[in-house]
Amino acid sequence: MPEQLTHYGSKFSGYAHKTGIALEEAKAQYTHVEIDFTNKPDWFVSINPAGKIPAIVYGGAAAPADKPSPESTKLAESAVLLEFIADLYPDSGLMPSDPVQRAKVRFFNNTVDTVLTPALFGWMVGGAPASTIVDAFKKIQELLPENGQFAVGDRFTIADASVAPLYVRIVLLAEKGLPGKEQAAGVLEALSSPELAKFKAYGDRLAERPSVISAWDKEKSLAYLTMAIQGAKAAK
Amino acid sequence: MPEQLTHYGSKFSGYAHKTGIALEEAKAQYTHVEIDFTNKPDWFVSINPAGKIPAIVYGGAAAPADKPSPESTKLAESAVLLEFIADLYPDSGLMPSDPVQRAKVRFFNNTVDTVLTPALFGWMVGGAPASTIVDAFKKIQELLPENGQFAVGDRFTIADASVAPLYVRIVLLAEKGLPGKEQAAGVLEALSSPELAKFKAYGDRLAERPSVISAWDKEKSLAYLTMAIQGAKAAK
Ligand SMILES: N[C@@H](CCC(=O)N[C@@H](CS)C(=O)NCC(=O)O)C(=O)O
Ligand SMILES: N[C@@H](CCC(=O)N[C@@H](CS)C(=O)NCC(=O)O)C(=O)O
Repeated sequence: MPEQLTHYGSKFSGYAHKTGIALEEAKAQYTHVEIDFTNKPDWFVSINPAGKIPAIVYGGAAAPADKPSPESTKLAESAVLLEFIADLYPDSGLMPSDPVQRAKVRFFNNTVDTVLTPALFGWMVGGAPASTIVDAFKKIQELLPENGQFAVGDRFTIADASVAPLYVRIVLLAEKGLPGKEQAAGVLEALSSPELAKFKAYGDRLAERPSVISAWDKEKSLAYLTMAIQGAKAAK
Repeated sequence: MPEQLTHYGSKFSGYAHKTGIALEEAKAQYTHVEIDFTNKPDWFVSINPAGKIPAIVYGGAAAPADKPSPESTKLAESAVLLEFIADLYPDSGLMPSDPVQRAKVRFFNNTVDTVLTPALFGWMVGGAPASTIVDAFKKIQELLPENGQFAVGDRFTIADASVAPLYVRIVLLAEKGLPGKEQAAGVLEALSSPELAKFKAYGDRLAERPSVISAWDKEKSLAYLTMAIQGAKAAK
């Protein structure tokens, strides 16, 4: 039986969205502490010295968010936390039990982190064209199994929790004509073309998932990302 | 009982050194295929489309290195492979069984990948000063447990397998006065000072480990790294 778990996240952070989804999918008992990462409380460095969300405080007695029990363990980095949540809830299916399937989940996440995440930043704030996103989507699509609703088969895993926040943000922005008219149109066009049909069906399945919906605040995310886009344009 | 496992690596690749160490520590039954990654055979893209080592072919019937069984699974990315080896050999201790300890192993590896690896490249071929390495060593040192011989305690884990190849290469270069006189001296000086005493004792313990010694070819590594350093200097 897992011990007390406090999740320091934010309904408009993409990284914390990942861990929020995993906690919901695991049906974990946890306390969510909303941290505005654009204006962090001073005490937050005592939770994560790197000052980043998501973070998890695990174990020890229940305690106020800013004064965790000395017996607790403080953990950070979304990739580490996704595995941690899966380890705490082995029956959730968040990680398969077969070593080869586990490796596929991790390779999928590695591709999300090294291909799709940089593509998103390049496109969103670096002026990179739609093809940057489209190429990354294609690389992810290639990893999808021939049969199966999710990243590595028929069960929702931390691979799905990892890619979902990026997919929903890219679609949200593109539908609003962001980060720029052509950049948005190119992504939407590719998504409605046959060459990305499989990926789009997969992404839309994730976007409809209750955990994916409940672990973020779409309006706040849009406002935050719009601000980031404007900031990047102003800096040029 | 694990199935057939073929390790495509190289005795002078730092990334393949990690997986080589893990396989030795697990006392795995495996076939090692030496790939000269500076001059890869054409067939290697059929093993890993990204063309990188390490890679593992797992399962299916035993087969020639360049014609793996269609029933086998092809896996890549050292971080994924380290976890895979630990999953195949749960009794090896390469991964602890406790979720919190597992998270510590993964956080340690995340720090190696995001702090020490870029520091090594910056110092080795980017002209960055000794302090770049020293700062990274300090960050790793902070993660070491109060008691315990290894990264997260008294058993050798994939965290140790991950950092060892970097440590031995940095020391090897510095002792040869590479990548430059001052860059080398600064690292050696810091390593013999009290502020890095704990880290040095840990690193030296890794360097003496039979798995760490047998999974690389020190002379070939030195020749390769020296060439990389000269190449970077020539390109300036
Ligand atoms: N590598 C980290 C990145 C986390 C991250 O960058 N979080 C952002 C919010 S989306 C943050 O907390 N930024 C505040 C800061 O860096 O001060 C992870 O995967 O958890
Ligand atoms: N991210 C990869 C990096 C592996 C890597 O860069 N391997 C080098 C040898 S140390 C390689 O195979 N290079 C050949 C190439 O990229 O063509 C991992 O962790 O496995």
